[in-house]
Amino acid sequence: MVKLDKLEVTVLGASGMAGQEYLKLLSKHPFFEVKHITGKSSVGKKLKEVVKFDEGKIDESLLELTIEKTDVESMKSDLFFSALPTNEALYIEQELAKRGFKVISDASAYRMESDVPLIIPEVNPDHLALVEVQKRRRSWSGFIVTTPNCTTVGLAIVLKPIYDYFGIEEVVVTTMQALSGAGYPGVPSLDIIANVIPYIENEEEKVSNETLKILGTLEKESIKLANISINVSCNRVSTINGHLESVFLKTRKSFSLEEVKNILASFKGKPQLLKLPSAPEKVVILDERKDRPQPRLDYMAGSVAGMSVVVGRLRKASSQNSLMLTLLSNNVVRGAAGGAVLTAELMFAEKML
Amino acid sequence: MVKLDKLEVTVLGASGMAGQEYLKLLSKHPFFEVKHITGKSSVGKKLKEVVKFDEGKIDESLLELTIEKTDVESMKSDLFFSALPTNEALYIEQELAKRGFKVISDASAYRMESDVPLIIPEVNPDHLALVEVQKRRRSWSGFIVTTPNCTTVGLAIVLKPIYDYFGIEEVVVTTMQALSGAGYPGVPSLDIIANVIPYIENEEEKVSNETLKILGTLEKESIKLANISINVSCNRVSTINGHLESVFLKTRKSFSLEEVKNILASFKGKPQLLKLPSAPEKVVILDERKDRPQPRLDYMAGSVAGMSVVVGRLRKASSQNSLMLTLLSNNVVRGAAGGAVLTAELMFAEKML
Amino acid sequence: MVKLDKLEVTVLGASGMAGQEYLKLLSKHPFFEVKHITGKSSVGKKLKEVVKFDEGKIDESLLELTIEKTDVESMKSDLFFSALPTNEALYIEQELAKRGFKVISDASAYRMESDVPLIIPEVNPDHLALVEVQKRRRSWSGFIVTTPNCTTVGLAIVLKPIYDYFGIEEVVVTTMQALSGAGYPGVPSLDIIANVIPYIENEEEKVSNETLKILGTLEKESIKLANISINVSCNRVSTINGHLESVFLKTRKSFSLEEVKNILASFKGKPQLLKLPSAPEKVVILDERKDRPQPRLDYMAGSVAGMSVVVGRLRKASSQNSLMLTLLSNNVVRGAAGGAVLTAELMFAEKML
Amino acid sequence: MVKLDKLEVTVLGASGMAGQEYLKLLSKHPFFEVKHITGKSSVGKKLKEVVKFDEGKIDESLLELTIEKTDVESMKSDLFFSALPTNEALYIEQELAKRGFKVISDASAYRMESDVPLIIPEVNPDHLALVEVQKRRRSWSGFIVTTPNCTTVGLAIVLKPIYDYFGIEEVVVTTMQALSGAGYPGVPSLDIIANVIPYIENEEEKVSNETLKILGTLEKESIKLANISINVSCNRVSTINGHLESVFLKTRKSFSLEEVKNILASFKGKPQLLKLPSAPEKVVILDERKDRPQPRLDYMAGSVAGMSVVVGRLRKASSQNSLMLTLLSNNVVRGAAGGAVLTAELMFAEKML
Repeated sequence: MVKLDKLEVTVLGASGMAGQEYLKLLSKHPFFEVKHITGKSSVGKKLKEVVKFDEGKIDESLLELTIEKTDVESMKSDLFFSALPTNEALYIEQELAKRGFKVISDASAYRMESDVPLIIPEVNPDHLALVEVQKRRRSWSGFIVTTPNCTTVGLAIVLKPIYDYFGIEEVVVTTMQALSGAGYPGVPSLDIIANVIPYIENEEEKVSNETLKILGTLEKESIKLANISINVSCNRVSTINGHLESVFLKTRKSFSLEEVKNILASFKGKPQLLKLPSAPEKVVILDERKDRPQPRLDYMAGSVAGMSVVVGRLRKASSQNSLMLTLLSNNVVRGAAGGAVLTAELMFAEKML
Repeated sequence: MVKLDKLEVTVLGASGMAGQEYLKLLSKHPFFEVKHITGKSSVGKKLKEVVKFDEGKIDESLLELTIEKTDVESMKSDLFFSALPTNEALYIEQELAKRGFKVISDASAYRMESDVPLIIPEVNPDHLALVEVQKRRRSWSGFIVTTPNCTTVGLAIVLKPIYDYFGIEEVVVTTMQALSGAGYPGVPSLDIIANVIPYIENEEEKVSNETLKILGTLEKESIKLANISINVSCNRVSTINGHLESVFLKTRKSFSLEEVKNILASFKGKPQLLKLPSAPEKVVILDERKDRPQPRLDYMAGSVAGMSVVVGRLRKASSQNSLMLTLLSNNVVRGAAGGAVLTAELMFAEKML
Repeated sequence: MVKLDKLEVTVLGASGMAGQEYLKLLSKHPFFEVKHITGKSSVGKKLKEVVKFDEGKIDESLLELTIEKTDVESMKSDLFFSALPTNEALYIEQELAKRGFKVISDASAYRMESDVPLIIPEVNPDHLALVEVQKRRRSWSGFIVTTPNCTTVGLAIVLKPIYDYFGIEEVVVTTMQALSGAGYPGVPSLDIIANVIPYIENEEEKVSNETLKILGTLEKESIKLANISINVSCNRVSTINGHLESVFLKTRKSFSLEEVKNILASFKGKPQLLKLPSAPEKVVILDERKDRPQPRLDYMAGSVAGMSVVVGRLRKASSQNSLMLTLLSNNVVRGAAGGAVLTAELMFAEKML
Repeated sequence: MVKLDKLEVTVLGASGMAGQEYLKLLSKHPFFEVKHITGKSSVGKKLKEVVKFDEGKIDESLLELTIEKTDVESMKSDLFFSALPTNEALYIEQELAKRGFKVISDASAYRMESDVPLIIPEVNPDHLALVEVQKRRRSWSGFIVTTPNCTTVGLAIVLKPIYDYFGIEEVVVTTMQALSGAGYPGVPSLDIIANVIPYIENEEEKVSNETLKILGTLEKESIKLANISINVSCNRVSTINGHLESVFLKTRKSFSLEEVKNILASFKGKPQLLKLPSAPEKVVILDERKDRPQPRLDYMAGSVAGMSVVVGRLRKASSQNSLMLTLLSNNVVRGAAGGAVLTAELMFAEKML
């Protein structure tokens, strides 16, 4: 792949935890060069003054960037990565797209719009065709491409090859989600110490709706949702990174465990074929040890740390044609910035940027 | 209820955490008086020398008891509560029953034997009729009555009234279990800090098999297992007490949410009717706050602390005739010593002791 | 003690965690009856709608109280307990005192004013004489009496009898403070999970300055600070309640360990002599087990739960005339609401209210 | 530095957590090649079968090594690293030295023997001269060199330059030690969750005695202990790696804060001069942020991860000529395997192996 010039990118909402994850992943990136970062309460400060937890993993040159105001009037960039909170994303992303800019967003604001692609590069890269629908319908010269909620990503990746081979009728999933999923300051320590909180606002609906869209079929100008009954319970547990999901699913066709293992372990998508920089060799890592995956031990698994989904405890369930497994998905890498960067890499490689 | 004399009881395996819980609950008990406690590594010591964590909640007189050897030859008591490890329970409980003694056991050794009752007093008190079958078949003058695994109890209690009214076809349950469920020393801190372990040895089979037996029907000389497809995933989380269970279930008949709320909230059993000392007023506490139950906040809920099961997040699921809820059951009280003591109280009240 | 009428009291800042602790301790109090509670963001709601964590421990009638605006113009009460944040306390407490009201405050705003008593009832009840100085100097008909920072209290209580018998030249103390000390929402979970934060804003200065005042001598119209060199390091650890303090101290006279044990174990103050309702039998509990006190196990120690300071690991240090010990003090009871209520009880008994 | 051949080394006690840390650090080491690993309960298994937590950080070839019996009769190696438990170290290390082998040990068994060097390479490399005394006195052709307790190391490193410049009269240190310091399975989770344990068996004596030896002066045939009064309190907290130590010290000469900062920040030893592979550029990292060092964020600080000691919160104390600071030292790297490997590198470079 010949790369003459890097694209100049802006990270919107770079001072939050999600934003900082972008800066880590875009440090010395072969396709993209961060030129601007924007924020709100810390405008005028350098990134290095506001960074939390992981300053050592962000390139020195990026730490020196000054946080700018998120100003739709004056911002210019080849590409905008958005780590904005939903309410801000709603206005700003649209205004940028109107003005002809390309936006790849991890915010939930536009995910469920019928003409906005909601992308996991290995799962539904064909949905990117919606970009043209979107531009035409809205008369935008730019566009918005979105990536899913951090809890959706791991689930949709694991369901995809099973869905393709055996069909899926029903899914029951209970999540045990990490604290970093709530951002910073996020969950008060007094709420979660020696505790589990069996509720995360709006999360269950998102996981259900987004999964159906991602596994859905592109039909002319929109996505036909997948016909699966998805039932989700979300819990917050006292882990730092990595969303653990206990999954039960019922297939339409019968299967053998060996078949499922094979299709999971061999699952590959365009990013692997194109050898994109953030594409892990294995989309799914199958761990056959009896007590894995574990968030603290496995959240950085894979050839590109944090981009593989780890699946363990794969077993037949007692209900017919049904299967149980536990998956772990890195919520800050694959489930947020990493998924967006991989989407951008795919669009770059496919000359959509 | 006239009580002339208290029964003299022995607690087997009293030096472990489960055993100590018995001593708490039997402190100043109106029916039972602990006369002997047995142990293994700490024989000859006083209970107060080995007690962990909760010495303040055990009656002074019991703290002064000396731990004796668990010796089937010499032990005598009106009733034996067994908190023995499975392998020891296997031999000792049987030998005691042969010798004419009455044993109520929380150990798993005999739970699934066809002529051994596995009792939750509010759920299947009629199964106690197996005692006579057991005595006759085995030519024992004594008997063994068992109580379920700590994770089974909460689930079976909540399923019972729903099963009776609407039938249940399928259950999918993911547990988030407390550290105390593994005893002491139990789970190493390095394994569980900032982590979840998605596996507990033998636990899933126990929950599934025991629930089917408890919800089963007494037919002449044995229990016909309930016809439910149960699928269980067990996880260890970093909480101290209280097993949280995320439950999905499919009923045979259609239901309204209001109906389910009503039958859960009004569920009562013999212990409530007989006003047994350890019977909570509400078997199930329905908590309608959106983020409850929580282990740290709710594990001692109820009029008899730790004996009620708290149910929250009750909602219709997207699959047909299906329901989701989160339940919390105190694993050391209702799920262990408390369940056994309540069983003993019921048998005492029914003149079976 | 004949009590004809209870005093009617107002709790200022009742909707926060500190405020709720007052409501627990004032539930069915023999001297005081809470008639009003005030707050800020939750004005108009009932207490039961905003209470966190411990609703079960507050009297039903108090849970029904409506949170009022903290309005110096209109509020009236026999006594005001203040759990206000410092900045609000600064204005409101003074305005109340000016208007003739009696204020007992746990806020830091006035603690170090030369004419404001900073009281631990067992340690320096004579400092209450400053109330008259304060009223005269400021021409107030009411007054402000303060209680110390939660970390100061345990330290000052333990130092007091040693100081009286042997003199103290130098103290080095390192604290390991509970999350509840930071209020709610307080410390973000991502900051403290599997971590220690070796800094608490302004805390070290408070502990040092307040201890010198409390151990100081009342001289005519002010307190002569104690002549001790105090060196404090404050750390936040991942515990829920109970500040643990590792203390090294150098006495002026030589001592034997037995002597120190005796004076600590027998330490009593006016609250014990007057048998005040919130006075624990033992001000200091000496725990000789080698690994105590521990926050989770011991924070509610004592005949009045949470009002005793537990001292363990008492030993001679290698430096001359020096001593080491570890103390645990309940930061929400003895270190906050409980200390203020006990102060009020003392003033009530001494007819100062 | 010309390296013709690597030394062939054996790691004794390689199956425990400390042993595994050696394997990480010796993966692809320029001087040493691990040829044998020994263990006890897992003899005959491959390392990869027993490794906990960090398999990804150990070289593939080492994971394939088979755990051998620790057999003094048959073992041969250019160098033995010992991660044995104390009681085993006592016999085995001596037998190996008798037989002419070179042993570098992190076990406590021989640390305080008068003719055994207790080495921190940057602090007291001259103490290695004791090796000759030891060989002569004991008529051994081999030798034992020891490295200190994990809690001693950070303290001794920070004290050294201050001691050299200003003298030290007294030290008071309170530690907050990580769970990994207790090995595996180590501390039961039920003991430490939401808790602090203010006691670690034998630890305080070790820290005190070892520090005095390390800072002591080599005089002919033994070490004259440093003349410092050291007072230590050890606590276990709920962190994974990194011992945090809150230090108060009194110097003999007066100092300015700037001077202390300079001598700490510029402290270098032989390992830095010789540019040994495991020598961090900065022995001490001075962190001027107000709330650092923090175990979770800083335990891998430095150019060789985990080999630098991080010092923060440096400030004058209220006592005369006294100083307070908080230090963080990685207990599994610098405080154990890393310290031993660096010692071996130094001896290798100085042709003592």
